[in-house]
Amino acid sequence: MATSPLRVSFSAAATALPPVVRDRIRDDLVAGVQRTPLEQPFTTAQFRETLAGAEDNVRRLLGVPEDHAVLFLQGGATAQFTLLPLNLGVGPDGGDYIETGYWARKTLTEASRVTRVHVAASSADHAFDRVPDLATWRVRPEASYLHITSNETADGVAFADTPPHPPGVPLVADMSSDLLTRPIRVSDWGVIYASAQKNIGPAGLTLVLVRRDLLGRAHASVPAPFDYTRQAAAGSRFNTPATFSIHVAARVLEWLVAQGGLAAMQAENRIKSRLVYGAIDDSGGFYRCRTSEAWRSPVNVCFRLDDETLTSRFLGAAEAEGLFDLAGHSRVGGLRASLYNATPLSAASALASFMREFQRRHG
Amino acid sequence: MATSPLRVSFSAAATALPPVVRDRIRDDLVAGVQRTPLEQPFTTAQFRETLAGAEDNVRRLLGVPEDHAVLFLQGGATAQFTLLPLNLGVGPDGGDYIETGYWARKTLTEASRVTRVHVAASSADHAFDRVPDLATWRVRPEASYLHITSNETADGVAFADTPPHPPGVPLVADMSSDLLTRPIRVSDWGVIYASAQKNIGPAGLTLVLVRRDLLGRAHASVPAPFDYTRQAAAGSRFNTPATFSIHVAARVLEWLVAQGGLAAMQAENRIKSRLVYGAIDDSGGFYRCRTSEAWRSPVNVCFRLDDETLTSRFLGAAEAEGLFDLAGHSRVGGLRASLYNATPLSAASALASFMREFQRRHG
Repeated sequence: MATSPLRVSFSAAATALPPVVRDRIRDDLVAGVQRTPLEQPFTTAQFRETLAGAEDNVRRLLGVPEDHAVLFLQGGATAQFTLLPLNLGVGPDGGDYIETGYWARKTLTEASRVTRVHVAASSADHAFDRVPDLATWRVRPEASYLHITSNETADGVAFADTPPHPPGVPLVADMSSDLLTRPIRVSDWGVIYASAQKNIGPAGLTLVLVRRDLLGRAHASVPAPFDYTRQAAAGSRFNTPATFSIHVAARVLEWLVAQGGLAAMQAENRIKSRLVYGAIDDSGGFYRCRTSEAWRSPVNVCFRLDDETLTSRFLGAAEAEGLFDLAGHSRVGGLRASLYNATPLSAASALASFMREFQRRHG
Repeated sequence: MATSPLRVSFSAAATALPPVVRDRIRDDLVAGVQRTPLEQPFTTAQFRETLAGAEDNVRRLLGVPEDHAVLFLQGGATAQFTLLPLNLGVGPDGGDYIETGYWARKTLTEASRVTRVHVAASSADHAFDRVPDLATWRVRPEASYLHITSNETADGVAFADTPPHPPGVPLVADMSSDLLTRPIRVSDWGVIYASAQKNIGPAGLTLVLVRRDLLGRAHASVPAPFDYTRQAAAGSRFNTPATFSIHVAARVLEWLVAQGGLAAMQAENRIKSRLVYGAIDDSGGFYRCRTSEAWRSPVNVCFRLDDETLTSRFLGAAEAEGLFDLAGHSRVGGLRASLYNATPLSAASALASFMREFQRRHG
């Protein structure tokens, strides 16, 4: 195989920035008349404009209706596992959860420390190779909310659309790994939250969209900077927000708009994932993806070699081609290619070609 | 007055980075063989080294003993107002607070949402011009902790040293604005917490030093990423930390070591604050600092003009000289010069010269 000039990471943990965004950020760090965005007090007009611009672009890209607040918080999605039920003021009935994989299980385990957790459906007995059959869901009408994990990064399972749910039970999702990768109907959702580091910006920033009729219910134990109600009233500036992370996110959001928005991202992301799934499906079993076809994640393609003794050879050969971080999640094993917005089509194409070539040599 | 090439902000909200650090960060954002620190997954060896280096330098600079854990969290000091009592597992006795100004009051108000708060001493009846006379402190021996705000950024009041306290009552401090500006004895303290944006790094990062015998007491409502015990066990990597903010902090900490550490910073910070307080004290009442001399903050010099009608003229003339953000806190008014570690001596000197010149013209 010829040495490729490509160097790309398929890590699930965090995305690379689009190179034009990274270059722009570097230029932003040249000190001029004003402080750079890395040093900007959150009280300045310059930062308020950045924050307002970021919110505007979130609203534009996702079509967020006015009856949802857009919050830029800290702490990551993991903090929301606990903060969400506390913010929604859950009482004795607690919340319902759909258990679809490693992250949904972690979510409901953390939530169970502060509220009653009811698993309304689980695909654990299918080793998380699918979203549980919708006919088996037992969502309690009295549940304070129904929580799903829209995309399981470790298991490679994803919801294709908003799931059905009883009227009156607000739908909640952790969309950390797929928010902004495709259009969604925000009006379907009570709360959407997402860590920034997959498709929004640097780690340390958390986007929360919350329907305003769910505000005003927080338990007293919610620290003010994580209280949806107080932060909605303060425009995400109750205390010092993560100013530079928001600046970077604002640049990423501008880039998404310039790319043509989420329909354009979805079209490109579909091509990317079809290239990699195609290399698996065309391999006659040399590569195997155990996820049911209807629930395959477009952003985290999880697969393995039929002959798992070849796995480390696969990883080494991939690195020699400039294709990095293709090992599966430590709890799941196998292989995984994460294809976030900033992963170029050329990278997915190079990976698919490499997979076909590797099969030709070792199949 | 000659036009100066200097442009410096004396904002209290956030510090500028030392120019050599800012330049280094910009260089760090050139994509090479590995991803840049802005895009680094927290799971990589590269990030773990950055985090370990930052912790080592915090320990070295502050002389943190091994029986204290060093945590790099998110959420800011404001989140700690609530998270601290919850982490310490406060029972019905609650915590004691010394009320020294705007921030101490805000701290105990937030804490009162989750625990009983006892104000052991207050200088409210002196309009926060001092730390309350130590003889008046009424700390309850059964208090779960005694909380102080080591430096009041809005009021310009600071503790010069560790205050006396009953044995068995752990001392806790919000040191957001003065941690790393001078040597301290960490062994005196049960918990020290600080937002990064004054002297440590970018907003969105919070340093917490906690004595290990205080671990293991957290309420279930503490979200995992903010649970001292779980984060101490996970080396601040229970979930994705604020990777890039930690990278920048690591660079600032390296710079502090290269400057000669905290004794050297304190020596320079003393000269800086003496220059500005000198211009006040020598003014024969043209400038007034109402803070009692023993409790004057070295980092936030709060003062006003005897003739307050000159305040806006002072601010305008200062800006014309390149001296920005000298207005006092919105709740306090007057003037304020914040002199954090990265404020150069030349800036304090230029401010003092400007103040003398302004007095000569308008006195």
